Amino acid sequence: MEPPMQQTRLDTGRVHAARRVIDPVFLGSPLYRCEALEPVLGCAVSVKLETANPVRSFKGRATELIADGLAGGGSRAAVCASAGNLGQALAWSGRGRGLDVTVVASRSAPAAKLDRIRALGARLELVDGDFDTARERAADIARHDGVRLVEDSLDIETCEGAATIGLELAEAAPPFDAVLVALGGGAMATGVGHVLKDLAPGVEVICVQPLGAPAMTLSWRERRVVTTGSTDTIADGVAGRLPIPAVLDDLLLVADDAVLVREASIVAGMRLLFEHAGLVVEPSAALGVAALLEDPARFAGRHVVTIVCGGNVDPAAYRDWIGA
Amino acid sequence: MEPPMQQTRLDTGRVHAARRVIDPVFLGSPLYRCEALEPVLGCAVSVKLETANPVRSFKGRATELIADGLAGGGSRAAVCASAGNLGQALAWSGRGRGLDVTVVASRSAPAAKLDRIRALGARLELVDGDFDTARERAADIARHDGVRLVEDSLDIETCEGAATIGLELAEAAPPFDAVLVALGGGAMATGVGHVLKDLAPGVEVICVQPLGAPAMTLSWRERRVVTTGSTDTIADGVAGRLPIPAVLDDLLLVADDAVLVREASIVAGMRLLFEHAGLVVEPSAALGVAALLEDPARFAGRHVVTIVCGGNVDPAAYRDWIGA
Repeated sequence: MEPPMQQTRLDTGRVHAARRVIDPVFLGSPLYRCEALEPVLGCAVSVKLETANPVRSFKGRATELIADGLAGGGSRAAVCASAGNLGQALAWSGRGRGLDVTVVASRSAPAAKLDRIRALGARLELVDGDFDTARERAADIARHDGVRLVEDSLDIETCEGAATIGLELAEAAPPFDAVLVALGGGAMATGVGHVLKDLAPGVEVICVQPLGAPAMTLSWRERRVVTTGSTDTIADGVAGRLPIPAVLDDLLLVADDAVLVREASIVAGMRLLFEHAGLVVEPSAALGVAALLEDPARFAGRHVVTIVCGGNVDPAAYRDWIGA
Repeated sequence: MEPPMQQTRLDTGRVHAARRVIDPVFLGSPLYRCEALEPVLGCAVSVKLETANPVRSFKGRATELIADGLAGGGSRAAVCASAGNLGQALAWSGRGRGLDVTVVASRSAPAAKLDRIRALGARLELVDGDFDTARERAADIARHDGVRLVEDSLDIETCEGAATIGLELAEAAPPFDAVLVALGGGAMATGVGHVLKDLAPGVEVICVQPLGAPAMTLSWRERRVVTTGSTDTIADGVAGRLPIPAVLDDLLLVADDAVLVREASIVAGMRLLFEHAGLVVEPSAALGVAALLEDPARFAGRHVVTIVCGGNVDPAAYRDWIGA
């Protein structure tokens, strides 16, 4: 791949600046070797843990930037579509700055996520349909009410927030051979990927998506937007059908690979992370381990980081997944 | 209580110095509000999370100091008794410095802890009996082999390592009203307590121990060492019978209270931390939440920190505890 820098929508200087805006509770998340996983996975595995914060996902890094910008600009309201984590995070960041936050989500999103969005004081509107249906409805609300529409992965702050994870990985010693990033809309993959390609270009950036929600991966492989008619995965956080062209353009510049994993591997990944690392993770956060399970030869002997991006699960569903 | 400073065996300056020795992977652990717990518990609850590191407990803070001192002093071997977490941590810290580490543990310690001690390269000797039996055996080995005996809670490094948690709490803003500390041998309680009484004397330091292993709490209440004939608790990490006089003396200076909780409350605490915070914790790490459950009136409306001190559980036992 040719050097991609100065071509994505991201700028590493702005990502550095973002760290001065984001509440420190979301920054400097734990990064550590999980040796107990390694005999099973056949490679050195470090975890970047994004669940030990007030919203239990990495999305607070982004919503801090958004809410800060809104409050600074005098705007007092925002609406977003969310699979559940962005909405929680925007509610949290907005509450701290006196913003009116509306979140549109699918009625089928995990109850734990929806409950937390409400508890954090956001107005929650549920739609019949999936995440992309919610996106349409959020856009309608924004147009009708004249409030800021926050679009995950399209809005640069959502990528820059996630990109601060990339800074923390790039600053870690020793360096890693590869980083596994869950791929949904692409904010985390393009954000982390941009920074790593800029500051640690030797690190392989591998995106992981469920076979049951492959739109962005298919798009990356074909180098053009490929949409799908539906999704079928337990990884609710990454279940999109309609890739955003500008995000795909960035992803083409920073991702070294994009792989698809089976549902059974995602469940096995969650179970491994519970049994050997003591981590409760949502399905999207187990995608990296799923990729390691599906292609051990590729990673044998290498040092891999997997970003554990969220831990918001319905307890009953989680109990089933870990083999109760 | 009279100002206790200059009276405990700890010195806050040395605790500051300790932070420059301890591997950063153990420092700056997450500290965050868990609002999802609050409707159940009736107070503001923050978690200080000591499980997101290579040994899944706070003990690495102490063993880094011990191993650094040993390596600097030219000694190459150490032996400790352990309920499982100190041994893992000493094995980890010793391995990085080329030390020979022997751990003596009870045959009834959780298999997950014993497996990790072996996997980290320590020699593991199992004894019939409990933690205090292991302490006797470790002392015998140290005498016989002429190697350093590491005694949890008695050796000042074990208190100073834990005390670095206190620095991180004292530096947090806003300040807290109370901190709940699991009480076993007393290293964490005296370490954290010393620093808080020095730097944030308004914070109430409350030790929590199981009713089934009450020796140190009874000792604190009677202001003299009280031993018990046996222990009966799932909280393996704090199950001691024989309080150490010097540690009790320190505890009398820094603890505002010591409470005992029922086994059912410990299990309920683990379940709450799983369901509402997504945290896998070992029984000892749920003692704080257990105390909140047992005396809600005491904590109503206050802001409490609970130190989640370890997450090493046998998966099968844990599944039973959380009702999976």
